[in-house]
Amino acid sequence: MTQVIRKAAELRDKVAAWKRSGMLVGVVPTMGALHDGHLSLARAARKQSDRVIVTVFVNPMQFNNASDLDKYPRDEAQDLALLEAEGVDVLFAPGVDEVYPDGFATTVSVAGITEPLEGAFRPGHFDGVATVCSKLFGMTQAGRAFFGEKDWQQLQVVQQLTRDLNMPIRIIGCPTIREEDGLAMSSRNVRLTEAERALAPRLHSVMQEAAAKIRDGVPVEGALNDAKTELKVAGFGTLDYLELRTVDGLKPATDLSQPARMLAAIWLGDVRLIDNIAV
Amino acid sequence: MTQVIRKAAELRDKVAAWKRSGMLVGVVPTMGALHDGHLSLARAARKQSDRVIVTVFVNPMQFNNASDLDKYPRDEAQDLALLEAEGVDVLFAPGVDEVYPDGFATTVSVAGITEPLEGAFRPGHFDGVATVCSKLFGMTQAGRAFFGEKDWQQLQVVQQLTRDLNMPIRIIGCPTIREEDGLAMSSRNVRLTEAERALAPRLHSVMQEAAAKIRDGVPVEGALNDAKTELKVAGFGTLDYLELRTVDGLKPATDLSQPARMLAAIWLGDVRLIDNIAV
Repeated sequence: MTQVIRKAAELRDKVAAWKRSGMLVGVVPTMGALHDGHLSLARAARKQSDRVIVTVFVNPMQFNNASDLDKYPRDEAQDLALLEAEGVDVLFAPGVDEVYPDGFATTVSVAGITEPLEGAFRPGHFDGVATVCSKLFGMTQAGRAFFGEKDWQQLQVVQQLTRDLNMPIRIIGCPTIREEDGLAMSSRNVRLTEAERALAPRLHSVMQEAAAKIRDGVPVEGALNDAKTELKVAGFGTLDYLELRTVDGLKPATDLSQPARMLAAIWLGDVRLIDNIAV
Repeated sequence: MTQVIRKAAELRDKVAAWKRSGMLVGVVPTMGALHDGHLSLARAARKQSDRVIVTVFVNPMQFNNASDLDKYPRDEAQDLALLEAEGVDVLFAPGVDEVYPDGFATTVSVAGITEPLEGAFRPGHFDGVATVCSKLFGMTQAGRAFFGEKDWQQLQVVQQLTRDLNMPIRIIGCPTIREEDGLAMSSRNVRLTEAERALAPRLHSVMQEAAAKIRDGVPVEGALNDAKTELKVAGFGTLDYLELRTVDGLKPATDLSQPARMLAAIWLGDVRLIDNIAV
């Protein structure tokens, strides 16, 4: 039985009892509308922790766009059924007032790695992520937290903030889960029309082709430019970014002398897709 | 025996062993140059915790003035002797590189109550306080932290940030300890000349007189203006502020309809004195 908890105080009591028995708590922070990507995180948590909490909270502080917040899919009954099937112990689903009560005034900010990519296109987004994660780690007292590599920059931000603030938690990144056609799973995918859904996996295949070229010695800028043209021709909307960045520090990478990651964000209708792959 | 620890990893192991035995850890964050004010906090921690850590770290991030940082008194040998006498278990004295290693990039900020008073005169000060306290709470995993009311606004900021970030710690404020002549104890007092030291306690007595007038029904503004004149005539330097503020939220108070605190910061030579009293 997955227990649904909505209050931080109730969660704290539950966790305190677990901790007195020496149990290791794992947490999977999510915004709900769960798909196999989230469930793979719950499975990883199940394997690497004694007790698993999945949090479902659509965090207003990390949305820079009111319409995106408004349209974000929500289906708690289905989320609960999926988590039951994975043997998750607690679904923690607090309301906005529970997370941000009257008088709330604290922000956690990470400089540097939050500035490019998502940070450049979603002002304030990573302050929202860093703040809510700090709160969720405080509320859950988890020893391990599981994040998908799909949100690669977010994963780096959470790793940096927990290291910087000496939080007693280990952040574990888990591989992106994809549909059979290569599209990275995302809660926002349900908002794609049929035609957009058919086109969407091209993002991943174009990125793979560009990565292969770069590994074969094609200059990075040329390979990325070819990919941008291909995406445009294929029918995608505005490209926010398609870049090669160092794994360590997310600095612009002009070659493969350091481990690198290719990251992209692109619009398809009114849905913004993001993806990233190793190069 | 008070054990001196300089590395966060060593402290973590020590604390983990205590916690496995179910012990409650108390922490007293200080910048060293310990006086009876600090020792009263160590005694409170001793009474209310199973194990006591006193941290000594002159935090560059909370100094807005390089000369103040430079002149801040340091005497670790004497600090250690004083803590030994109080039965403190650990003196945690990390170096700057241990607290802020290369690549450190995270800031914790509290809005609202950090803006007036010290916040207005020491830009960035409370970001430094909030960030280092978050780190020290992470490092020490303390269940209780003890702060002096001498730094009243700081105490409110730490209470707010731990509440806002759901940190599993209780913040306990302890009364200001004063010299016999009423001067609030402060590590910076050793930098006063003999003449300045003789004048310094007038701050507290002038504040007490103003508070008595206000309680007797004298309008707040008049009572504070009289006090400002008296301090000027007595020979103090620049007054940064002398204000009545609500205990809850540090809003300007024009009467005693809500619990209020009188707070002051004033220069005496090149030393800045702060004090506050209940009204």
